[in-house]
Amino acid sequence: MTAPQGDFLAACRRQPVERTPVWFMRQAGRSLPEYRALRGTGNILDAIRTPEMAAEITLQPVRRYGVDAAILFSDIMVPIAATGFGVTIQPGVGPVVDEPFATPADLARIRPLIPEIDAPYVAETVKIVVGELGVPLIGFAGAPFTVASYLVEGRPSRDYAKTKSLMYREPALWAQLIDRIADQAIASLLAQIDAGAQAIQVFDSWAGGLDAEDYRRYVQAASAKIFAAVADHAPGVPRIHFGVHTGELLGAMAEAGADVVGVDWRVPLPVALTRTGDGVALQGNLDPVACVAGWEATEPKARAVLDAARGLPGHIFNLGHGVLPQTDPDVLARLVDLVHTETAR
Amino acid sequence: MTAPQGDFLAACRRQPVERTPVWFMRQAGRSLPEYRALRGTGNILDAIRTPEMAAEITLQPVRRYGVDAAILFSDIMVPIAATGFGVTIQPGVGPVVDEPFATPADLARIRPLIPEIDAPYVAETVKIVVGELGVPLIGFAGAPFTVASYLVEGRPSRDYAKTKSLMYREPALWAQLIDRIADQAIASLLAQIDAGAQAIQVFDSWAGGLDAEDYRRYVQAASAKIFAAVADHAPGVPRIHFGVHTGELLGAMAEAGADVVGVDWRVPLPVALTRTGDGVALQGNLDPVACVAGWEATEPKARAVLDAARGLPGHIFNLGHGVLPQTDPDVLARLVDLVHTETAR
Repeated sequence: MTAPQGDFLAACRRQPVERTPVWFMRQAGRSLPEYRALRGTGNILDAIRTPEMAAEITLQPVRRYGVDAAILFSDIMVPIAATGFGVTIQPGVGPVVDEPFATPADLARIRPLIPEIDAPYVAETVKIVVGELGVPLIGFAGAPFTVASYLVEGRPSRDYAKTKSLMYREPALWAQLIDRIADQAIASLLAQIDAGAQAIQVFDSWAGGLDAEDYRRYVQAASAKIFAAVADHAPGVPRIHFGVHTGELLGAMAEAGADVVGVDWRVPLPVALTRTGDGVALQGNLDPVACVAGWEATEPKARAVLDAARGLPGHIFNLGHGVLPQTDPDVLARLVDLVHTETAR
Repeated sequence: MTAPQGDFLAACRRQPVERTPVWFMRQAGRSLPEYRALRGTGNILDAIRTPEMAAEITLQPVRRYGVDAAILFSDIMVPIAATGFGVTIQPGVGPVVDEPFATPADLARIRPLIPEIDAPYVAETVKIVVGELGVPLIGFAGAPFTVASYLVEGRPSRDYAKTKSLMYREPALWAQLIDRIADQAIASLLAQIDAGAQAIQVFDSWAGGLDAEDYRRYVQAASAKIFAAVADHAPGVPRIHFGVHTGELLGAMAEAGADVVGVDWRVPLPVALTRTGDGVALQGNLDPVACVAGWEATEPKARAVLDAARGLPGHIFNLGHGVLPQTDPDVLARLVDLVHTETAR
């Protein structure tokens, strides 16, 4: 007798579930006191490079909340950092690049990722986690546009002016840049799957800065290459595609090859499904700010998401973006209970 | 014989035009060398308080570009600053508040604006401008949510967590706060109209942080109060309503009472019209980043906007957000010519 696949994988596959599965982007992180205690003030990339610590951080929210999936504690810039491009993750800022990508000569700085040599700690962490975990582990990678935006801007940006200027002015160089990022993402994702990850999520967090025409023209193919490679290597592994401000991109993001499309809080889930088309499951989409305003604010907004999701072919409850650092973990614990209780068949 | 109303006002009213009118949000500002020369390093609020200087800055882009409308050089925080709340505009940052709004006691810090006493320089600037201007002048105010976000957060925010938490947790206090901001906006707009402004724009730049349900529940009434007061006082003056990331709010923003709805670059104009409903003109929506990547990048994107706008009942060409400071003015000059040439009847 085999173990059931569980509600998370079933929902990703648009199959019947016992209860709506729930997990939270950034569930492992600064909102948890046990995370802050374990991490201290050290560099986040150092923590990621320490499998026992990264595994423990990955497991913390699963123990505390009883969520239906874990997500690997890592960072979308790990492949870039591990292959020597020169990037640090600055607390309160985000990824900062020493020398931004600007010319064809910089292509040589983005070499193929060899996971077992460049970043063996990722697979080691995955193996530790899956050995202790009773729910699926989600591996992840950054999508080409989002990773490229950090390489070109040098740091987080409001408008992606340098990134999009490069895209418009030098489309051939841009295509090479994001193809290399896609290849790194593929190598990283396949290594995570081979080590035991049972689903993957591609974070194109900042794709929403693009209009749909630019997304299709300049970005979609590189992202689609990632989804195709995962499907080819591991046909049964659900592929989640997420970004914020992507209301107008949901169709194009689904086309890229996702099994599940993440939706931010601005788009009601039934509206999102009209844009993705009917072939995908949806993940989302509670406003993370609702969770920092106390349970009295969280509960009605969470119930509204559950109401909107009723009858969808597949729904994974999540926030519309990552857990904010100031979130009270008790609110998230009650939220998991609410989702499970209200959706029990 | 009366002068024709001109294409800008005609388009706002969904009446026939000779050519599609065009102006740019932030057309008066740091992208212009003549602006930088005139302003130097002084405080922006001081420049706004100096009518001869503010008028000259307002006129600069009209002279240079031949745009179809001017917009008053001012700031959405002027009423708040002029009534003593304590706010500065920090270069490269934005509005910064000394003591953020947090409790009912802070309501007393937002008193009614008496334009002729608190900010007489605004009407003086308007009068100078309209005396020299051959095109309509657009007056403006900040919308309640956007202004409130600065008062509550104390500075620009990515997630509006404090603002929305206040909204969720203390809806009565929130309603009083934004009603006071609305009253200040009304007083300011009516004074600008009385001084000669021929259209007004309400900037709810950050409303796109809200989902449509929250917008309708917590924000729409205060914004609608502004639009109703303008219509009551000056029935013929077109009212423009603008924000970014507002793809899911376009219907609710139109309902608030706008004659023209501003659209950011993410939503194709014909799609926007299906969301606003058919009773409004649309303003927009070229990606401002297209204008910093050279004319070769600007032109095809601008033509795509013109193509999308063909057949709309009323279209004012603009960017989807403000002119970026690094924009080459020559690109905007060519853009004005392109819009006028391509749409000449």
